[in-house]
Amino acid sequence: MHLTRFTDYSIRVLLFLAVKGEERATIGEIAETFSISRNHLMKVVQELNQKGYLTAIRGKKGGLMLGRPPESITLGDLVRDTEHEMALVECFRDDNACIITPSCRLQPILNEALSAFLAVLDGYTLADLLEGHTSQLSRLMRIPTVPVND
Amino acid sequence: MHLTRFTDYSIRVLLFLAVKGEERATIGEIAETFSISRNHLMKVVQELNQKGYLTAIRGKKGGLMLGRPPESITLGDLVRDTEHEMALVECFRDDNACIITPSCRLQPILNEALSAFLAVLDGYTLADLLEGHTSQLSRLMRIPTVPVND
Repeated sequence: MHLTRFTDYSIRVLLFLAVKGEERATIGEIAETFSISRNHLMKVVQELNQKGYLTAIRGKKGGLMLGRPPESITLGDLVRDTEHEMALVECFRDDNACIITPSCRLQPILNEALSAFLAVLDGYTLADLLEGHTSQLSRLMRIPTVPVND
Repeated sequence: MHLTRFTDYSIRVLLFLAVKGEERATIGEIAETFSISRNHLMKVVQELNQKGYLTAIRGKKGGLMLGRPPESITLGDLVRDTEHEMALVECFRDDNACIITPSCRLQPILNEALSAFLAVLDGYTLADLLEGHTSQLSRLMRIPTVPVND
């Protein structure tokens, strides 16, 4: 069982932007920090932009910024938005060919388990991922610390 | 997010055996019922046998039978046993290269969500998948109904 790489990278991008705060970031910078493909990140950033999670500002002083405060981004919603297929097994899919589906209780049971999984994530926001760790994350991401009021 | 095909097929095999009850089943019969690859099923059956979920009896009157009563097979344990990798994102894996892992709170939060998912499945057994639906499942699986005491 795993989440897609798309979700994994989406969380990393938003975490990076949250740590950067008011400063704008570039895709190149995020790709380099996490040693991940720039092309893959482009698609992630584009979709996060479309869904309002981040803002891409054009121009010389442009770059990426969080589109909403980290406290308002729940991990449950983020996972629902970035996992394009929540089909736990074949009978959840449109092309399902399992012949016992009409009388099988697996799907409602798995749906109940999935709801419990997402309910836990609904209890956390992007801000919770940072809480008390912003300076360590900033160091690990090699983001220069900007003194307050500087 | 999805479970592996291995888990999906494991559940189908055990459901088939549960519906068959005292009668022995063959891999060919299960493969045909679900229109799935015989080779893939061989591996599934082998592992379910090793783990005691089913018994393979050799010989002319041989075949496959459930290794334990359906009431004693919890779906949580079955998923834990058949999902070979519960690595929700990269930082769960041995080859993790995400540089922020030491200060990132994602892993404990995802572990909490995963526990909630499995806790729901721990509340159900293979018998619950059948409950009240054995005759419909038997018809869908094209298993001839054996009259009681016959």
